[in-house]
Amino acid sequence: MKKIVTIGGGTGSFMLLSGLKKYPLDIGAIVSMADNGGSAGVLRDELGVLPPGDVRQCLVALSDASDEMRTLMNYRFTEGGLKGHSFGNLFLSALEKTHKSFLEGIDTAMEILNVKGRVIPVTENKAQLRMELLDGTFIEGEDNIDHALFQKIGVKRLLFDSPVKANPLATAAIRRADIITIGPGDIYGSVLANLIIPEVARAIKKSTAPLIYNVNLTNKKGQTEGFDVDDYVDAVEEVIGHGRIDYVMYNTKRPSPRLMKKYEEQEGKDFWVEWNTDKNPDRTYRLVQGDFLKNGEAKRAKGDALAASRSFIRHDSDNLAKAIMLVSELPEYENIQVSII
Amino acid sequence: MKKIVTIGGGTGSFMLLSGLKKYPLDIGAIVSMADNGGSAGVLRDELGVLPPGDVRQCLVALSDASDEMRTLMNYRFTEGGLKGHSFGNLFLSALEKTHKSFLEGIDTAMEILNVKGRVIPVTENKAQLRMELLDGTFIEGEDNIDHALFQKIGVKRLLFDSPVKANPLATAAIRRADIITIGPGDIYGSVLANLIIPEVARAIKKSTAPLIYNVNLTNKKGQTEGFDVDDYVDAVEEVIGHGRIDYVMYNTKRPSPRLMKKYEEQEGKDFWVEWNTDKNPDRTYRLVQGDFLKNGEAKRAKGDALAASRSFIRHDSDNLAKAIMLVSELPEYENIQVSII
Repeated sequence: MKKIVTIGGGTGSFMLLSGLKKYPLDIGAIVSMADNGGSAGVLRDELGVLPPGDVRQCLVALSDASDEMRTLMNYRFTEGGLKGHSFGNLFLSALEKTHKSFLEGIDTAMEILNVKGRVIPVTENKAQLRMELLDGTFIEGEDNIDHALFQKIGVKRLLFDSPVKANPLATAAIRRADIITIGPGDIYGSVLANLIIPEVARAIKKSTAPLIYNVNLTNKKGQTEGFDVDDYVDAVEEVIGHGRIDYVMYNTKRPSPRLMKKYEEQEGKDFWVEWNTDKNPDRTYRLVQGDFLKNGEAKRAKGDALAASRSFIRHDSDNLAKAIMLVSELPEYENIQVSII
Repeated sequence: MKKIVTIGGGTGSFMLLSGLKKYPLDIGAIVSMADNGGSAGVLRDELGVLPPGDVRQCLVALSDASDEMRTLMNYRFTEGGLKGHSFGNLFLSALEKTHKSFLEGIDTAMEILNVKGRVIPVTENKAQLRMELLDGTFIEGEDNIDHALFQKIGVKRLLFDSPVKANPLATAAIRRADIITIGPGDIYGSVLANLIIPEVARAIKKSTAPLIYNVNLTNKKGQTEGFDVDDYVDAVEEVIGHGRIDYVMYNTKRPSPRLMKKYEEQEGKDFWVEWNTDKNPDRTYRLVQGDFLKNGEAKRAKGDALAASRSFIRHDSDNLAKAIMLVSELPEYENIQVSII
């Protein structure tokens, strides 16, 4: 069975893993641990636990538990002192408290939820994400970074506010992987929050496994407006080494004009991630084009209070997973344009 | 397989069910739904859910899930906005919210926790317990009743503040039962809170199954000081009919002098439930004497913040269950003094 490692966090990882789960793969899902907003932030501050949100989403994606259990894990309390907490976050926080460590708690969660594969927090350190801008100012914490408009000033670098060591399970999984995927997900809070940990970047550089980058569908207002595929590739390769990405999965399908308009109002004019053929003739990656767009708007789950503010343009789990399976079977140096429609 | 129905709530039911679980029995655990204090009270007030605490304890007692899952269910958060909430209560409240009803939520909980038998809330109504005293005053809510000192004034009656209908599953279980047990547990908040629901009392009266009453080990300060076995029997039979109780399980073992002293300081001088042979020559029940006392003090579970204020003299699950099994095999009219040491 082929070993695949996915690197990301949040909804992006959820979509990807939901698709990959259906294939005979040994899955290791590496997730960022930088979340400090919302329910995760409160739990982190009040209980001193690690932020459970990204781990929870991956656990649910890979779970073979009943639909009731999966619904339960994503349920958010909407009233009283519990308002905003997702049940799954409380579940993981209580498991951390009743076990010696967050990692041991996740082991029990994986058993209870009958998880296919393994969910691997990229670190056990409770450091905060920090962004240094070109004017010398800093933005502290993933939640602030998520909501800041810093593109005009420009990003100097992304780092942590204290030393962060990679979870040895994460680097081991990368070393053993037959396929590695990065993204989709927020470029700063999900993707780079994994890659800037030195041991992670080093393990990816050393690996000879094909590296697939699932580039985002849309840009973010005030952060990545007008970014095209190569801008994302550059941002990632700046950390893991230029030329390291083997395949870029790029969606060619557009949503309905109505949805495009709705999104444009929210995220600005240049929100769609374009592929500019002529921009860079020296590209070393191969582009995999296909319909990777989920049909219709993402449904709002019952009690999921945050769903309203979440992206309603999402990756299609099945098509993305199919493309990854196809690509991973290709002989390494054969030059084929894959097109999945 | 014999069908046994236990009627009670709280720690008493937990101890009893932990013992009964080991026998080949079809168990239906009917639990009171009057709890309005602590975590349950907050959840009831803020989320409008049914009080989950008693149900949780019974689910855990009958669960064949892993030790980790059982520990998790009883874990109480000790910091921040979640302080005092047991994880299991949040679990049941979230299940109520993601299902059509509390009962359907419990069905899912029973599956997830691999429960042997069935936990049956005595009602789905959200009424509050109310105690009328002989001076015409009222005490509102189980939590206030639990903490009030009303013995000197005297209890006129226990009722609910709004109409309460029995859960049909509860009355059906009583109708089909081969054995029925009542208690142990707080006489007002756990035992009578079930029995004062008219359909429940009626079903017990109609049943011909042997009825076993597990009398409490200790009395409660300002509430049942100086009560002996017959006082408890009277309190119960006043509701379900005089002469209905077939067997009374009575503990003859005393704890260590050190523990007796500790308890006396907390609960007053007449805290030990005595059996006064000569008090009532017309008794219709048979007394089953034995060592039903748990050795040593009940351990405080990690993170169980309320354990400190809980009773440290408890029933021995195994001996109590053994005695119930023994009694339930007896021919109905044979007059045997069972003594289990």
